[in-house]
Amino acid sequence: MRIGILNSGGDCPGLNAVIHGVVGAAHTLGWEVVGFRDGFEGLLPPGDYMMLNTEKTIGIMKLGGTILGTTNKGHFVAKVGEGNVAQVPAEIVEKAKNTLRHLEVGALIVVGGDGSLTTGLQLYQMGVPVIGVPKTIDNDIQATATSFGFDSAVAAVVDALDRLHTTAESHKRVIVLEVMGRHAGWIALYGGMAGGADVILLPEIPFSFEHVAKAIRKRDAAGRHSTLVVVAEGAHMETGELLTKEKVGTKGEDRLGGIGDYVAKHIEKDTGKETRACTLGHLQRGGAPTALDRILGVRFGAKAVELISQGSFGRMVSYQQYQVGDVPIEEAVHQLRLVSKDSEIVRASRAIGISFGDC
Amino acid sequence: MRIGILNSGGDCPGLNAVIHGVVGAAHTLGWEVVGFRDGFEGLLPPGDYMMLNTEKTIGIMKLGGTILGTTNKGHFVAKVGEGNVAQVPAEIVEKAKNTLRHLEVGALIVVGGDGSLTTGLQLYQMGVPVIGVPKTIDNDIQATATSFGFDSAVAAVVDALDRLHTTAESHKRVIVLEVMGRHAGWIALYGGMAGGADVILLPEIPFSFEHVAKAIRKRDAAGRHSTLVVVAEGAHMETGELLTKEKVGTKGEDRLGGIGDYVAKHIEKDTGKETRACTLGHLQRGGAPTALDRILGVRFGAKAVELISQGSFGRMVSYQQYQVGDVPIEEAVHQLRLVSKDSEIVRASRAIGISFGDC
Amino acid sequence: MRIGILNSGGDCPGLNAVIHGVVGAAHTLGWEVVGFRDGFEGLLPPGDYMMLNTEKTIGIMKLGGTILGTTNKGHFVAKVGEGNVAQVPAEIVEKAKNTLRHLEVGALIVVGGDGSLTTGLQLYQMGVPVIGVPKTIDNDIQATATSFGFDSAVAAVVDALDRLHTTAESHKRVIVLEVMGRHAGWIALYGGMAGGADVILLPEIPFSFEHVAKAIRKRDAAGRHSTLVVVAEGAHMETGELLTKEKVGTKGEDRLGGIGDYVAKHIEKDTGKETRACTLGHLQRGGAPTALDRILGVRFGAKAVELISQGSFGRMVSYQQYQVGDVPIEEAVHQLRLVSKDSEIVRASRAIGISFGDC
Amino acid sequence: MRIGILNSGGDCPGLNAVIHGVVGAAHTLGWEVVGFRDGFEGLLPPGDYMMLNTEKTIGIMKLGGTILGTTNKGHFVAKVGEGNVAQVPAEIVEKAKNTLRHLEVGALIVVGGDGSLTTGLQLYQMGVPVIGVPKTIDNDIQATATSFGFDSAVAAVVDALDRLHTTAESHKRVIVLEVMGRHAGWIALYGGMAGGADVILLPEIPFSFEHVAKAIRKRDAAGRHSTLVVVAEGAHMETGELLTKEKVGTKGEDRLGGIGDYVAKHIEKDTGKETRACTLGHLQRGGAPTALDRILGVRFGAKAVELISQGSFGRMVSYQQYQVGDVPIEEAVHQLRLVSKDSEIVRASRAIGISFGDC
Repeated sequence: MRIGILNSGGDCPGLNAVIHGVVGAAHTLGWEVVGFRDGFEGLLPPGDYMMLNTEKTIGIMKLGGTILGTTNKGHFVAKVGEGNVAQVPAEIVEKAKNTLRHLEVGALIVVGGDGSLTTGLQLYQMGVPVIGVPKTIDNDIQATATSFGFDSAVAAVVDALDRLHTTAESHKRVIVLEVMGRHAGWIALYGGMAGGADVILLPEIPFSFEHVAKAIRKRDAAGRHSTLVVVAEGAHMETGELLTKEKVGTKGEDRLGGIGDYVAKHIEKDTGKETRACTLGHLQRGGAPTALDRILGVRFGAKAVELISQGSFGRMVSYQQYQVGDVPIEEAVHQLRLVSKDSEIVRASRAIGISFGDC
Repeated sequence: MRIGILNSGGDCPGLNAVIHGVVGAAHTLGWEVVGFRDGFEGLLPPGDYMMLNTEKTIGIMKLGGTILGTTNKGHFVAKVGEGNVAQVPAEIVEKAKNTLRHLEVGALIVVGGDGSLTTGLQLYQMGVPVIGVPKTIDNDIQATATSFGFDSAVAAVVDALDRLHTTAESHKRVIVLEVMGRHAGWIALYGGMAGGADVILLPEIPFSFEHVAKAIRKRDAAGRHSTLVVVAEGAHMETGELLTKEKVGTKGEDRLGGIGDYVAKHIEKDTGKETRACTLGHLQRGGAPTALDRILGVRFGAKAVELISQGSFGRMVSYQQYQVGDVPIEEAVHQLRLVSKDSEIVRASRAIGISFGDC
Repeated sequence: MRIGILNSGGDCPGLNAVIHGVVGAAHTLGWEVVGFRDGFEGLLPPGDYMMLNTEKTIGIMKLGGTILGTTNKGHFVAKVGEGNVAQVPAEIVEKAKNTLRHLEVGALIVVGGDGSLTTGLQLYQMGVPVIGVPKTIDNDIQATATSFGFDSAVAAVVDALDRLHTTAESHKRVIVLEVMGRHAGWIALYGGMAGGADVILLPEIPFSFEHVAKAIRKRDAAGRHSTLVVVAEGAHMETGELLTKEKVGTKGEDRLGGIGDYVAKHIEKDTGKETRACTLGHLQRGGAPTALDRILGVRFGAKAVELISQGSFGRMVSYQQYQVGDVPIEEAVHQLRLVSKDSEIVRASRAIGISFGDC
Repeated sequence: MRIGILNSGGDCPGLNAVIHGVVGAAHTLGWEVVGFRDGFEGLLPPGDYMMLNTEKTIGIMKLGGTILGTTNKGHFVAKVGEGNVAQVPAEIVEKAKNTLRHLEVGALIVVGGDGSLTTGLQLYQMGVPVIGVPKTIDNDIQATATSFGFDSAVAAVVDALDRLHTTAESHKRVIVLEVMGRHAGWIALYGGMAGGADVILLPEIPFSFEHVAKAIRKRDAAGRHSTLVVVAEGAHMETGELLTKEKVGTKGEDRLGGIGDYVAKHIEKDTGKETRACTLGHLQRGGAPTALDRILGVRFGAKAVELISQGSFGRMVSYQQYQVGDVPIEEAVHQLRLVSKDSEIVRASRAIGISFGDC
């Protein structure tokens, strides 16, 4: 038996742990593993790949990134902007199938986010035996309670806040930290809570600058002269007014970027306090995976191989009830998991005095 | 309203986050918080305590240990050895009640493990309005899916294994790392998996040295000349033979200790390979809490205050279904959560080639 | 005896270690310590200060920032832009002297950079018994071989590069990291070398984009499809053309900022490769001090107290010949220590293939 | 041109950085590099080696250990116990020369400590063109102001002390940390100072338990109920009484071991305070190198290649006056650099209240 694996979309801590898990489990079964390079692009004839074995995966589990490379562009893109799904051209799929046939690859593990899983689903529907592994650093795929990469991204945010905290206090400043999170604010919420942020602005809870300024002034009045603000890149105002690219710059990965600078300037104007912005950017993606993310990655990889051994194709590995199980890919795509305003964690945050800028 | 809080038993990363959560939530409600020192001992007249406010909890969330101090000895011990429960003397309870009455403390938050929660339950049954918060660095209280401190202990194990990995490889050695886990092997299992251990010995899965040696020899034959072994302090052999204190030394906290040295010597004798032992000991307890543990601690603290505000005494805060809820303390004590031999995580570990020394 | 201490200018890891050293050494001598808040501003009547003792300095050594607060603005500014020295007004100095007299402070330790030491020198010349302690995160004060904060800033750069390395490789990108260093490129040089940067752009070695692009293309040709570029904020082009604020934005601390974005865009245009920028900013300042910086800080603090006990005023603590000694403040100010193009470390960098964009 | 490199003796963070520097500099000159495995043993016919190139050294700089392996045993041992030098047998040297001739290796870089450099010197005297690179995690080779590995070992000690500090405080305990340092106490001194130790016991400053107990009691009286003690493995008592292996156990690498346990028990008996011991052991060796150690390693490697290009054999790379230079190996061996009782750093430590157990 010979199986294939590819990583697709933005990189994320834990990808190498998935590879480690897949190769380790395949090795135990006596199977060979073909690692395709640079996402689905590696499937184009004649195939861009490397043969993987346990020798090649020694020590990779603790490295960020992916030894296979990845891309969020190319011939297989099935998601065009928000909510618009395209069909991967039949001739492209045919080419991929030829490569797999030629290399005698009997099953393909696709590690990717919502867009890449959509492509994986289309391949499956057109006859490729696909297993999906959810990659979502934002932690916003509904069908899995969590995934690898998220905990590491949160750790990067906390590390940054721990650093910013002392400098903000020493200079009595407001510091705004922009973090990832276009649709879901989990990174901002977890990172902000653990890093001792005073204000957290999320896509799910529209804010007003008036309330943000009020929170900062209230702190000042209580003798707390520095304030840490965490803002998710997809945060927006109650007024519905967009913080558009035009308005705030063009940084980021085709994302609404520069919101941190924009928010910092607004706060400085509103409160008269010295305010600085810091954008975490790629520092969130590239770190060594935390213990939790390594473990999730390995278990996801091992489960993917188990699913292949059972012939359960078209399914996605998923974390549920503190165990790794699986669901149909079809049910998993296009279902976002968002922060709920009324959830226990948001209530706990408010209870200890964190402001979401909404009241 | 004035409430009290105490930490009891061994310290654990995240205790200060609980204090931060309690004080933050109480502050929002306009309540005062009395922090009792050195566990239940602080309740003895005239009371050993400090008044806590948000000024005093700035920045403590990221520190290990507890600003209140703690002890696993004293007048309130309700658990005598494994499975033997004693009643805290009525006159001691009376003294504690007098202190609380005198200080006008209307509710008491007890942060502790199984033994301390048992004491807390007895106080509740004798009229003290108690809320329990589970502290279990070993992650072995059945009634909560997880608790603060565990993730940090696992991180310490992974950090140690990352360090040992390179030196083991450079010298082609076997290195044995002894970690916490008297009854439950979660720390060894998670830490070993994330740190790339090759052999993991748990209390729940009896091992034989024959199988351990076989695993090491198999690696040698495949060109892997170094091996990392993680052993929980409570691991034991298939033969039922005890690794007694007499046999292995007297280190550790009233625990079966020195098992790491014993295992290392046995392996060196069995395999002829240079073998070294390393005991992680207090380095597992004292680290800065991870993001996850800070968040859990804060949420637990906020929930404890919420339960007080609802008058729901005799209950323990608990993490279930990815949310912080609560259960009766009575149902929580004396129920261990153990690693199951047939669980998905153990199967995944075996699938990728980890040996548990049992076959 | 009662002595005073203040921190002035931008904060820097190790300031708290200096305070720890000063308070510890004063305590041993039975002296009292007055900590002035927010730099020299704390000297204005009636004095903004806190009494310091060993109780208050427990554990501060490992924290970034300064418990005293600091500012790089105010009534005592003696350095106006590059190379322009102003005299602190006599009436301001008189006010400071009154505060010191009133509080019975017999000596003043000034911890600060070139500008703040200039102020300190003026105070000394007008009769205040001043001891200087050099604070230079950029490591560019000629009169001390090194100072606290620099090693921690380098560690922050290396941590960032380690993170960026894996994501750059996974996506075959160029990533540009902007770091501190207006006049001296030590942070960029040390950080870049230790973090495995391929191109390092320093203020001391003018670069051309042509040579930078050549280095990147050469790597591509050799199969290295990702490149890490470190650029000091004060780097500039061979042509003498300024990367002015107008051209590149207005971020940063009255510094030429945004050079990272500018360089990234230029490289993307020149090479056609996907290029991303990341600005480290305040993350360099705020971290926990490294072991080296804690030790330097403590030794500097202890030496400052020793100098006071000897009545050696007007002198600055200094690290020379691997020992902490002292020099006249007068000889120390306005003497920059710069990276030499022909130094052993630059030659070593070139020897292993690092490009400085100059050939 | 083809050159060889080997690592000998115990592993140490920064070895891979030396290899990185050597390979990078050789690559620039168009030279080939042969990496011999497992120290000098790799020189025995037919030679155990791998060809090194820049492809193989990507990313190794940040890893502990050495990709070449190392050993402190074998056919080339030239140092037998303290102060006894043996001659490597002529036939063994002849075999090594044959291997080098056969592989057309024109120069050999020996990275090792005092013993391995002695072997290197003998090889040089018998006609092998040798360059030495000093490896001394204890930082005790007189001929170089510092070397790679030391700063990383200190960082490991500080990390451990930071962890132990909170748990010691929470439980009001004395904790004794045993660290490396048979002859020289630099690791204990630097690590202890930066980690906030209260008592530091060094080989160079004989101590008495009476004075240690006095220091602990004095702290207790001042309200400081926890104490951190750092003890170097080679520390000994004023009485001259040996802490022999028989007395304290047989752990460690042919070193006087178990001193931490011994000291802890003695302190507990003397003071009546709960005392715990922790032995850092291999955790000091195996970590990722700090920025400083990476830089030193790379510069040492580049300098070694430069010396070869100049034909300056029989010389050892050395750090002096903040630059990497070189000295004759002959002058470097057998010259220990020890902590002086009267040095500025020891005086500074005493000044801030650290006890060395000697008064």
